[in-house]
Amino acid sequence: MALERDVEPDVENKPDPGQALDLASRLTQDHHQSLKLWLRMLSCTVKIENEIRSRLRATFGITLPRFDLMAQLERYPDGLRMGELSKRMMVTGGNITGITDQLEQEGLVVRVPDPRDGRAYSVKLTQEGRKAFAIMAETHEAWVAELLAPIAHDDKAQLINLLSQMKRHLNEGTNR
Amino acid sequence: MALERDVEPDVENKPDPGQALDLASRLTQDHHQSLKLWLRMLSCTVKIENEIRSRLRATFGITLPRFDLMAQLERYPDGLRMGELSKRMMVTGGNITGITDQLEQEGLVVRVPDPRDGRAYSVKLTQEGRKAFAIMAETHEAWVAELLAPIAHDDKAQLINLLSQMKRHLNEGTNR
Repeated sequence: MALERDVEPDVENKPDPGQALDLASRLTQDHHQSLKLWLRMLSCTVKIENEIRSRLRATFGITLPRFDLMAQLERYPDGLRMGELSKRMMVTGGNITGITDQLEQEGLVVRVPDPRDGRAYSVKLTQEGRKAFAIMAETHEAWVAELLAPIAHDDKAQLINLLSQMKRHLNEGTNR
Repeated sequence: MALERDVEPDVENKPDPGQALDLASRLTQDHHQSLKLWLRMLSCTVKIENEIRSRLRATFGITLPRFDLMAQLERYPDGLRMGELSKRMMVTGGNITGITDQLEQEGLVVRVPDPRDGRAYSVKLTQEGRKAFAIMAETHEAWVAELLAPIAHDDKAQLINLLSQMKRHLNEGTNR
């Protein structure tokens, strides 16, 4: 993780000691290329995430984990168990039980008995919660569009394409 | 942020109501494309981050914020003030003062008077801390290379290129 902001070690452009690279050098170069890609991706993600975090706070007075939690529930109208919800969160560091309690008090989510297991329960958005989220989601989408506006349509399409490929590989490699 | 995992609303491929798109439809499509790109990027980042988080714990018994903090210090041999350090962290949710205290107790970092301001102090890695980090960083780099190994060299180069462009735009747009 980590490591880059605006100053950044130039990990890829090491001097090339000879014409033909031996295997070890090639491996090192591949490692550096992957690290560079990862740091670049992480850096962009953190920047966008921080911007959205602060706009959510300023505009709606809510935290990013709260938005994330509602976003996950919005996709599962039948509700999610706490464990499923926690696995689906895209933002770390939020206290899921605490956020759920708070949203329940505000009437934005309800806990309902899990149809698959009477002793467990699921959390789902109320109609009011769905309405509240829809408003925020629209604004959120406009922010993302604004932040990514300087990138050409074709470049975005290419990024989506390459990142979809990456996602597929990551799912194959890390799903257990 | 949020919203996507393996199931994902197909935000971009909405039916096209006519041959010629009016401005509103084009705007909507642009928004959807940007959102899709953002969710795709976030999803890949979270996947890699989670994998690295669990490997750091299993292999070195350390947290991701601790690794991140040492990574930031490694790039500033003269040390960083707490405020600077906090701004540079790529991972949210870590207690920076707590991590620093712990690392100091283990002899991996020291607090030194800030040369620019006698009342403030900077944190820097000790020689031992630098050595400990170098070992972890090498393993970390190999993990990243392994996770991104299925992506072709040219595709990685293209991603680096496009993400560098994105990073530049984000810096221009959000730096204050």
